[in-house]
Amino acid sequence: MKVPEILQIETPQTPGSLASVLNVIAEMQLVLEHVTTVRREQGRTLWEITLEIEEADQERLLQRLSALPSARFVGWSDRAFERHRGGKIEMRSRVAISTQQILRDIYIPGVARVCLAIQKDPRKAHEYTYVSRAVAVVSDGSAIPGVGHVAARASLPVMEGRAALLASLAGVSGVPILVESTSVEHFVETVRAIAPSFGAILLANISSPRCFEIERKLRAQLDMPVLLDDQHGTAVVALAALINATRIAGISLAQTDVGLIGLGSAGLGIARLLRTHGVNRMLGTDIRPEAMGRLAELRGQGATLEQVMARARIVIATTGRKGLIAPQLVRDEQIVLALSQPDPEIEAVAALEAGAAIAVDGKSINNVLAFPGLLAGALRAGAHSIDERMLLAASQAIAQAAPEGQLVPDPLNPAVHEAVAAAVAAACGESPPRLQ
Amino acid sequence: MKVPEILQIETPQTPGSLASVLNVIAEMQLVLEHVTTVRREQGRTLWEITLEIEEADQERLLQRLSALPSARFVGWSDRAFERHRGGKIEMRSRVAISTQQILRDIYIPGVARVCLAIQKDPRKAHEYTYVSRAVAVVSDGSAIPGVGHVAARASLPVMEGRAALLASLAGVSGVPILVESTSVEHFVETVRAIAPSFGAILLANISSPRCFEIERKLRAQLDMPVLLDDQHGTAVVALAALINATRIAGISLAQTDVGLIGLGSAGLGIARLLRTHGVNRMLGTDIRPEAMGRLAELRGQGATLEQVMARARIVIATTGRKGLIAPQLVRDEQIVLALSQPDPEIEAVAALEAGAAIAVDGKSINNVLAFPGLLAGALRAGAHSIDERMLLAASQAIAQAAPEGQLVPDPLNPAVHEAVAAAVAAACGESPPRLQ
Repeated sequence: MKVPEILQIETPQTPGSLASVLNVIAEMQLVLEHVTTVRREQGRTLWEITLEIEEADQERLLQRLSALPSARFVGWSDRAFERHRGGKIEMRSRVAISTQQILRDIYIPGVARVCLAIQKDPRKAHEYTYVSRAVAVVSDGSAIPGVGHVAARASLPVMEGRAALLASLAGVSGVPILVESTSVEHFVETVRAIAPSFGAILLANISSPRCFEIERKLRAQLDMPVLLDDQHGTAVVALAALINATRIAGISLAQTDVGLIGLGSAGLGIARLLRTHGVNRMLGTDIRPEAMGRLAELRGQGATLEQVMARARIVIATTGRKGLIAPQLVRDEQIVLALSQPDPEIEAVAALEAGAAIAVDGKSINNVLAFPGLLAGALRAGAHSIDERMLLAASQAIAQAAPEGQLVPDPLNPAVHEAVAAAVAAACGESPPRLQ
Repeated sequence: MKVPEILQIETPQTPGSLASVLNVIAEMQLVLEHVTTVRREQGRTLWEITLEIEEADQERLLQRLSALPSARFVGWSDRAFERHRGGKIEMRSRVAISTQQILRDIYIPGVARVCLAIQKDPRKAHEYTYVSRAVAVVSDGSAIPGVGHVAARASLPVMEGRAALLASLAGVSGVPILVESTSVEHFVETVRAIAPSFGAILLANISSPRCFEIERKLRAQLDMPVLLDDQHGTAVVALAALINATRIAGISLAQTDVGLIGLGSAGLGIARLLRTHGVNRMLGTDIRPEAMGRLAELRGQGATLEQVMARARIVIATTGRKGLIAPQLVRDEQIVLALSQPDPEIEAVAALEAGAAIAVDGKSINNVLAFPGLLAGALRAGAHSIDERMLLAASQAIAQAAPEGQLVPDPLNPAVHEAVAAAVAAACGESPPRLQ
C-alpha cells in the first residue's frame, strides 16, 4: 500500500539543487505530492517533500539521494501523525459550571423541567439541547479514500477529520459514529436507534452499492436530514465546478454531452444532480452491469470508456482507478474532472497537455466544500430531509463564491460555508420536493 | 408532576419581610428548595425562591402573596431554561485548520496513513484519535430523577449535563447517545455496534432491573470500561461519605450494622461495594422479592423497614420515595443517608431533630463526585474494564478530599476529580479483579 510520506531533506541555496532531488524521485517513478520550504538559513534550505512510497522502496531512495553531492537526508517527518496526536476533536461545555446554583440549573434538579418540556413538545429539543447543531458522522470504514476497507475504529481518524471540519468551517458539532455492522439492515437499525441523539445524519465512506440502500432506508425512517456525502457531497461540488467551467468555456451545460466514467456512489450522485439541474445528454460507463442499469433509470446512455471520451465534451471520472484515462483519449477543448482520491484517473497536467480546455482533480473538487454548509443550512432551517432543491442551491452558492476564472472557492474560507448554509436554508423554505 | 420553579419576589429590607413570604409557602405545604438574593438596592431586595409547585397551584400562591403588605411578585424565572438554550455542549476542533497543508494532514490524504497504522495496531487509536478521552453517555430515558420515564430525546438534557460535567471537571469528551430500544438485547446490540467510536461507556438513568442485565452483557462483550453510574457512581460516593461519617462518629464501618432501604440499582450497588470494602453486617428491605434475592446473594439479611431502622446504626435509603422514613423511626446516634433525588426519604433536618448523629441527602452525596474521575482514570490507565478495586480507590480518594468534619468534598473542584482519576488509574495497575 502506497501512502504519502514526508521526506525532509536539506540542500544548499544554489540553482538546481532541489531539481537534482526531484530527478531522483522522478527516476524512481514515485508520485510527487507536495514540496514546501520548512526553513532557509545560512545558505541552506530544509525542504519537506510529500511523496507516495512503499516502505520497501524507502531504503533505495535514501541510497540514491546519498549519491547526490549536496543534498542531506534529514529524516521522514511524522507531521501528519503529530497533528493527530490525542485526537482532533473534543467535546466542550458551553456553560461555565462555577457555582452550585449553575450545577443545579443545568443538571439535577433543574434539568427535569427541560426534559418535561421536550417530552411535551419534542420540537423544544431544538431550542434547549445541542441537536440543533449535532450531526452524527456515520461510517463502517468500508470505503476510505486511498485505503479501502478498514475496521470500524481504524476509520475514526477520517470521521474525526470530518467532525473537525464541521466545527471549524460551519460551527456544527459532528460526532463520529463508527458502526460495526453485520448487514445493511443491522447498520440501518443501529443508526435509527440512536438517531434521537442527533439533529442530522452524515453518512460517509461507506462502500457502494450498500450505501444507497442504507441512505434510502434511513431517509424513509428518520424525520431529519440524512446526507450520503460520498454521493451528494461530491455531486454538489462537481456541479458547482461545471457551472463555472461551462461559463468559462462559453457553452451551455444543458446542451452539452456529459460523460460519466464510473457509476458508483459519486458517479450516480452526479448523474442524478445533473439531471435535476437540466442536463439532458448524459452517457456513462461502468464495469458493473447493475450500475449501468441505474444510469438507464436516469435516462442516461450506456457506452464504453472510449465512446465516452470520444463523444462527451465534459467528462467526469469517479472510478477510484488511478491513470485509467490514457492521455491520447483526451480530445481538444474537453473539460475533464478526474475526481478519484488520492489518485485521479488522469493527472490534470497530463490532460491539459493532451488538449483539454479545463482539467481538475479531486484535490480541488473537494466535498469539504459541500457537506459543512449543507448540514448547517438544513439544521438552521429545521429541515426534515435534504432534497434536490437544497443540493442545487448549495451548488449555485459554491459556484458563485469562486473567484473569477476559477471553478470553485477556497474550502478553508468560512464565508463560503456560511453562503452555502444560507442558500440551503432558503431553498428549504420553498415547499421542498423529495429526492428520487 | 411537581418540578422546581423559581419565584422572583421583591421585599423591603425590613426584618421579617422574607419570613412572611416563606410562611405563605409553608402554609401551602410547598417544598422549599433554595432562597437567594438577586440584588439589594434602594431599600428593597429581589429574591429568587426555588420551590416545587404544580402549575395548578401557582395562581393560588400568587393570590396569597398579593395579600402580603410589602412583598411584590416580579415573575417566574426561566433561568434554568435560559442556561439550556442552544444546548450545553459543543464539539470543537483541536486543530486550527488554517492552511491547505494542515487540511491535507488531518484529512485526505494525510489521514490515510493514520488509518492504516490503527488497522495494523488497534492500540494506536488511543494515541492518534480522541477515543482516549471519548465516553458515550448512554441512556434510554427510562429513569430520569424527578421525572421518571421519558422519550429517548427528552432525556438529552440530562445526558448533555453529564457530558458538560465530564468536560468541565475532568477534560473527558462525553457524547450523549440516546437509544430508542425495543428490548434489552436490542439496547445491548446497538451499543456494542457503535462502541468502536468510544473509549468507554457510561450507562446512566436506565430503569432497574434492566440496567443490570445491560451492564453485565456490555461488560462481557466490550473490551473497554463500562460504568453503570446509577449503580456504581452512587455507591462510590456513598462509601466515601460512610468512611468519613464513621471516622467522625468514632465507629468501625466493618463492625457496624448497615441497613439498606431500597435495593434497586443504587441500593444493590452500595451493598456490593460495602461488601467488597469489608462490611460484614448488612440488612436490607425492598418491596420487590427479586431485589431481596439479590441482597441474599451478597449475604445480606432481609428485614422490614421498621427492623432496619431499629437495628442498623447506619441507614442508606435509595427508594425514590419521598418521606418514606417517618422521623419517629430514627434512633439516637443513627447515621442516615437518604439519597433519593430530588426528594429524600427523610429531610436531613428532620432526621437530625429526631436524634440522628449525621444525616445527609442526595444533594451532597452526589454521583457527580464519582463518574468524571472514574472514567478519566480508567481511560488514562488504558483499562479494559472498571473493577471493584478501582471503585474502592475512587471512594478513598473522595473521602480524603473532603474538608475536615465534612463527609464529601465540593464536586465543582477539579482537583478532587484529578485526585480520583489518579487513584483510579493507580488502582488499575494492580492486577485488577473483575466485578461480581
